[in-house]
Amino acid sequence: MSEFIDLAPEVAEAFASGAPVVALESTIISHGMPYPQNLETAQAVEQDVRDNGAIPATIAVIGGRCKIGLSPDELEYFAKGTDILKLSRRDIPYAIAKKCDGATTVSATMILAEKAGISIFATGGIGGVHRELATSFDISADLTELGKTSVAVVCAGAKAILDIPMTLEHLETLGVPVIAYGTDEFPAFYTVKSGQKAPLRLDSPEQIADFLSAKWDFGLEGGVVIGNPPPADKALALEAIEHAIDSALVEAKGLNIHGREVTPFLLQRVTQHTKGKSLEANIALVRNNARLAAQIAVARAK
Amino acid sequence: MSEFIDLAPEVAEAFASGAPVVALESTIISHGMPYPQNLETAQAVEQDVRDNGAIPATIAVIGGRCKIGLSPDELEYFAKGTDILKLSRRDIPYAIAKKCDGATTVSATMILAEKAGISIFATGGIGGVHRELATSFDISADLTELGKTSVAVVCAGAKAILDIPMTLEHLETLGVPVIAYGTDEFPAFYTVKSGQKAPLRLDSPEQIADFLSAKWDFGLEGGVVIGNPPPADKALALEAIEHAIDSALVEAKGLNIHGREVTPFLLQRVTQHTKGKSLEANIALVRNNARLAAQIAVARAK
Amino acid sequence: MSEFIDLAPEVAEAFASGAPVVALESTIISHGMPYPQNLETAQAVEQDVRDNGAIPATIAVIGGRCKIGLSPDELEYFAKGTDILKLSRRDIPYAIAKKCDGATTVSATMILAEKAGISIFATGGIGGVHRELATSFDISADLTELGKTSVAVVCAGAKAILDIPMTLEHLETLGVPVIAYGTDEFPAFYTVKSGQKAPLRLDSPEQIADFLSAKWDFGLEGGVVIGNPPPADKALALEAIEHAIDSALVEAKGLNIHGREVTPFLLQRVTQHTKGKSLEANIALVRNNARLAAQIAVARAK
Ligand SMILES: [Mn+2]
Ligand SMILES: [Mn+2]
Ligand SMILES: [Mn+2]
Repeated sequence: MSEFIDLAPEVAEAFASGAPVVALESTIISHGMPYPQNLETAQAVEQDVRDNGAIPATIAVIGGRCKIGLSPDELEYFAKGTDILKLSRRDIPYAIAKKCDGATTVSATMILAEKAGISIFATGGIGGVHRELATSFDISADLTELGKTSVAVVCAGAKAILDIPMTLEHLETLGVPVIAYGTDEFPAFYTVKSGQKAPLRLDSPEQIADFLSAKWDFGLEGGVVIGNPPPADKALALEAIEHAIDSALVEAKGLNIHGREVTPFLLQRVTQHTKGKSLEANIALVRNNARLAAQIAVARAK
Repeated sequence: MSEFIDLAPEVAEAFASGAPVVALESTIISHGMPYPQNLETAQAVEQDVRDNGAIPATIAVIGGRCKIGLSPDELEYFAKGTDILKLSRRDIPYAIAKKCDGATTVSATMILAEKAGISIFATGGIGGVHRELATSFDISADLTELGKTSVAVVCAGAKAILDIPMTLEHLETLGVPVIAYGTDEFPAFYTVKSGQKAPLRLDSPEQIADFLSAKWDFGLEGGVVIGNPPPADKALALEAIEHAIDSALVEAKGLNIHGREVTPFLLQRVTQHTKGKSLEANIALVRNNARLAAQIAVARAK
Repeated sequence: MSEFIDLAPEVAEAFASGAPVVALESTIISHGMPYPQNLETAQAVEQDVRDNGAIPATIAVIGGRCKIGLSPDELEYFAKGTDILKLSRRDIPYAIAKKCDGATTVSATMILAEKAGISIFATGGIGGVHRELATSFDISADLTELGKTSVAVVCAGAKAILDIPMTLEHLETLGVPVIAYGTDEFPAFYTVKSGQKAPLRLDSPEQIADFLSAKWDFGLEGGVVIGNPPPADKALALEAIEHAIDSALVEAKGLNIHGREVTPFLLQRVTQHTKGKSLEANIALVRNNARLAAQIAVARAK
């Protein structure tokens, strides 16, 4: 194990015994949800992984050390923390050298999971290509990471405020497999549908485990996107989300909001339009992804 | 050799004796031409490679096994097949895990060739950056593959329906050498000219072999594009092709065809405008590329 | 050491004794400045590196050999040379195979520095995303190289004629750390300010050395951009440069100059507007970068 990494005792035991492990990110705790829902969700997600037969490893940087697995106290610290950096690939050396605390985004969690030897990672949604690409050129580093880091990311797709067709095009360009789980359509975070067919469909954790083995055993390095639709009873309707985004885009134009200012504006407007429901959906989909990730990790450990 | 790969007996012998081998793709057989022209062309192309002193290795996936070299029966099976997947990088693990039959595109053929140890590959044309980039963000995975997989692709350039200047810019961004063979201009598939100067020019198979040795022996990984102009007597005129594309672009706008729908529409219109002649040109240029690829492989084996 | 590389005696000695070495590029000599200012600057820059405790290694290709460190005569040859190729990644094998002389751009210098084992490189400015991206798709290969080659590039930012916000977005997408030295804002070559906040800020050569050690020791491959503001007394004013660029963009539209023709046109107009001063600023900032690079190399060698 790298000298920069600390394994939680439970994760070290799992590695020693060959038990399945699922990586979890920490940005959703520190930056993605309000307290105390963030702590409750982080705890519930870890329990969901356990209930499905795997060991959870929430990943973060504390005092410059890369932590694979957090203690209950550390989880609480991140849930209450206000001075926690948000780390993507480029920021990891800064947090290490400056001995900072940092929450890992999708890209940074993938990197630390791979370095620790964990190949399955559950999160809410991945980043993607932003709307107004031609004027902002804003493309999430998550996609670049998926092109080269060998971790499967179980998510509810990419957020609807992104340009989903362009995000799928870019994943194709980068050679990243995109699998819809048990459905033909790529999900769009809060919604079961996105209007976009997924390039591949698989219908059981075992099929996904076989796919991952074929990919990595053959030496085809890089990540895999597993799009898991949000639970139907908590999911929002595509039309409502699309309507909120379309009105926000018109409003943005009127307010002269351009380029990289557009995404946070859209995010804020969608949250306003869906508030109570969007947080509830977010919690439900993250837990749903953790369950599937654990099932895939169990199938792969067989 | 990887456990996922089956070498045809002739290819295994060539490897054992150090004889030159040329990789050939299978998508052109299963999806690129009508029967029986596809079978006749595939057979002729293999013979062209032999006639120039190398061993052909047509690449495909059959029943989940990666085949390096097809038997005459397998070639016929692909030429007649209707249920054959089209595989790019991201689809290879799916075909392996599901034990499917799949034809390999340029990107997938490069990968399997590299894994088998073949460094020269002949095809018709590579993919590229699509017109309407700003609204579709559609860039072929072939270009990404050329940025990292160490195989030289002998082709007649990129198809004219693509945005050729942007394709050349992107190859420059990715650090991929683009060589015009015996000419200053990058060819445009059906046409000898594209209106674009090639970044590099070399004039003999030996010069190209020396270039490839310098690149790979020095550890500069990644592919090389070798643009071989189509035979003059079968090539089409640039003006005619450009005219067909320009009218089709106007027509597409009138029909409200946008983003990723544009490329298949352009392809269909160009084929309609040039039909008999375009198939004839296609066959002639693939054979022409196979001959040059064999000559380069022979020069490299010296 | 690779069979393609010749180390200058002084550089070989530095490697043997563990002394710090700074790589320098040669395109600025052969293509970036007029004679004799180019020779005087190249000599002064080497002296600046020495005065700060490190050994300079100006990098170029001569007669197909990759030279790490040039003799005084070789430096003069490049300063006076008229038949010297400009080499980026894709051109290196051509220069080797054809036994040409070539000056190395940022991307090629990074590659040769990494192959020789040098991790700190001083230059003027890096390439980036060009204005009119949507119509030209012109993105410098320097950015791609920064995404994968483990060399820190000390520069005064990217040139103002580029699209600086898009350049910063693309570096984020590629996972490349961008550090401003002793300031919050990313510099813009001739100007201390660019209007863009840098993603990271560090305030001493030791802090930068610690950052680089954390990155590379942890196995996070790829380059780092260190933006060093030009010396205040020689820097130009952002408003003046922006004004020159804005007028030139209007002029370009009037002259029907599009796509990849825009950048050389802008460069020419900015030079006309600032002539004496821009060359003076260029010399001052390159020397300033060489000093900082030497200090970082010294801090890393401790
Ligand atoms: Mn971004
Ligand atoms: Mn495409
Ligand atoms: Mn360019």
